[in-house]
Amino acid sequence: MSLPSGYSIRPVKASDYKRYLEVLSVLTSVGDVSPSQFEKLLDHWAANSLIYFPRVIADAEDNVVATGMIVVEQKLIHGCSKVGHIEDIAVDKSQQGKSLGFLLISHLNSIGEKEGCYKIILDCSPKNTGFYEKCGYKDSGVQMAIRYD
Amino acid sequence: MSLPSGYSIRPVKASDYKRYLEVLSVLTSVGDVSPSQFEKLLDHWAANSLIYFPRVIADAEDNVVATGMIVVEQKLIHGCSKVGHIEDIAVDKSQQGKSLGFLLISHLNSIGEKEGCYKIILDCSPKNTGFYEKCGYKDSGVQMAIRYD
Repeated sequence: MSLPSGYSIRPVKASDYKRYLEVLSVLTSVGDVSPSQFEKLLDHWAANSLIYFPRVIADAEDNVVATGMIVVEQKLIHGCSKVGHIEDIAVDKSQQGKSLGFLLISHLNSIGEKEGCYKIILDCSPKNTGFYEKCGYKDSGVQMAIRYD
Repeated sequence: MSLPSGYSIRPVKASDYKRYLEVLSVLTSVGDVSPSQFEKLLDHWAANSLIYFPRVIADAEDNVVATGMIVVEQKLIHGCSKVGHIEDIAVDKSQQGKSLGFLLISHLNSIGEKEGCYKIILDCSPKNTGFYEKCGYKDSGVQMAIRYD
């Protein structure tokens, strides 16, 4: 399986502002984020580049069509090993059927493995477990959450 | 509910080496971590002090009896908000029945809320959901994992 011709997986950049927010809004509430806030956020992620790995899939015109992130957490357990957290996977609705989600997850998995993660985890709704199983993931427990919004 | 007399919740420190590893080993494999690796790890966490909040409960003799961490992730979604990840909660077996787990989770929740998290999440086995429900958490989905060890 491979990306459509001209498509690429790359880090997010400031000029992705509009499309990045549009694609992410498929997933959840993005809220009110200005271009300058977006740049500041990218600077913050870049300043912590061994922790945050924000990636996008861009089409042949370099427009963002999918977003995803792996957050690499430095732990003590397992001999000072690391755990990767896959976050905020979103694929533009017009791009379904091209396996972009699978290809992005595979890319983020390879970043996590290269960074020395002994495991990578993510949380999903029960209806999406089949997709993540195709990406090599297994059901490993329950996600619990407490909300302050 | 409050801590036993003389007990405190505080950040982990280098002199906790032996007890911190002992308490964490209740939870999972700690592996081979030397005192200098431990100090280096604490330096790394301290250098990223807006992300990693490693905390312990110490008894009246300042010995570690419980460990826990909240990792605060800076996101774009929800107006450039944050999500807290509760990690590596362990309570010494000799200290059961003192609500130390509950008190530590409550403390980590308050750190996450103060840091501006719109939600805090954690993963657990199905048998522990009742405990986390007492801490204010709700079942929110499935944890999926891929392992490289």
